[in-house]
Amino acid sequence: MDNKHETYMQRAIDLARSGMESGAGGPFGCVIVKDNEIIAEGWNKVTSTNDPTAHAEVTAIRIACEQLGSFQLEGCVIYTSCEPCPMCLGAIYWARPEAVYYGCDKVDAAAIAFDDQFIYDEIDAPIHARTIPFQQIAQNEAIAVFQAWADKIDKTKY
Amino acid sequence: MDNKHETYMQRAIDLARSGMESGAGGPFGCVIVKDNEIIAEGWNKVTSTNDPTAHAEVTAIRIACEQLGSFQLEGCVIYTSCEPCPMCLGAIYWARPEAVYYGCDKVDAAAIAFDDQFIYDEIDAPIHARTIPFQQIAQNEAIAVFQAWADKIDKTKY
Repeated sequence: MDNKHETYMQRAIDLARSGMESGAGGPFGCVIVKDNEIIAEGWNKVTSTNDPTAHAEVTAIRIACEQLGSFQLEGCVIYTSCEPCPMCLGAIYWARPEAVYYGCDKVDAAAIAFDDQFIYDEIDAPIHARTIPFQQIAQNEAIAVFQAWADKIDKTKY
Repeated sequence: MDNKHETYMQRAIDLARSGMESGAGGPFGCVIVKDNEIIAEGWNKVTSTNDPTAHAEVTAIRIACEQLGSFQLEGCVIYTSCEPCPMCLGAIYWARPEAVYYGCDKVDAAAIAFDDQFIYDEIDAPIHARTIPFQQIAQNEAIAVFQAWADKIDKTKY
């Protein structure tokens, strides 16, 4: 194991601990590295900021993108103290970093009652079989805006 | 179809269009309703704010939770102009609203080059087979913080 990776991961783990101890939220930390430099640090702030999306990875991704002035994490590596939940995994794919290193895995997370597996199962479930009811309405009205996007000339793709 | 649902969805669709036309980002809008009142409105702001997590649903969830002073959307209904991507779906499960109504579906989204299916496929792929490399390191060091969380008495669960 390259010692550099261990060092960055240890920082993510330290942030997980300090965030938890300060009452910011759950025991999760994350750093984002570009060109051998930490450009963003995040830790879970869900309960202290009333933001269910303020997971360590989402928080760090937002900061890193702000630092870079880009909505893409080109050439960046994410170190997160735990395997990303489905929300963070989605955020990672939208941000497109080069690689992800994680410490604990989802089995470890489930053991302390962070059961991401429930969400993984719901994502895979047929839409009518989910515990939160999902219903499609007004599809034609909604598609009209998609058509306008398709026809739009001056758009920034992402 | 209850006309009330159509009215809220139309507002989400209008936000999708105005956000797109103003150059905020992609053609996606969302409103969150509690007790027959819109408490939050969101639209995609990814490219204008350099935030890959600034999808319509995530934006609206953040605002609604701030309004409610809670990290849970108890008794709330989400109206989104398009079926949520995996990131937003994760955010929705963490926020736990009562129901979700959507306009376009992921097939419609793929037709205008928003291919969420790629992310769905990656989530289901074995971790070593993903296009972004994921690697586990320092699991023992990371688990120590999880153990500290398990032992912590004064914690806010979520």
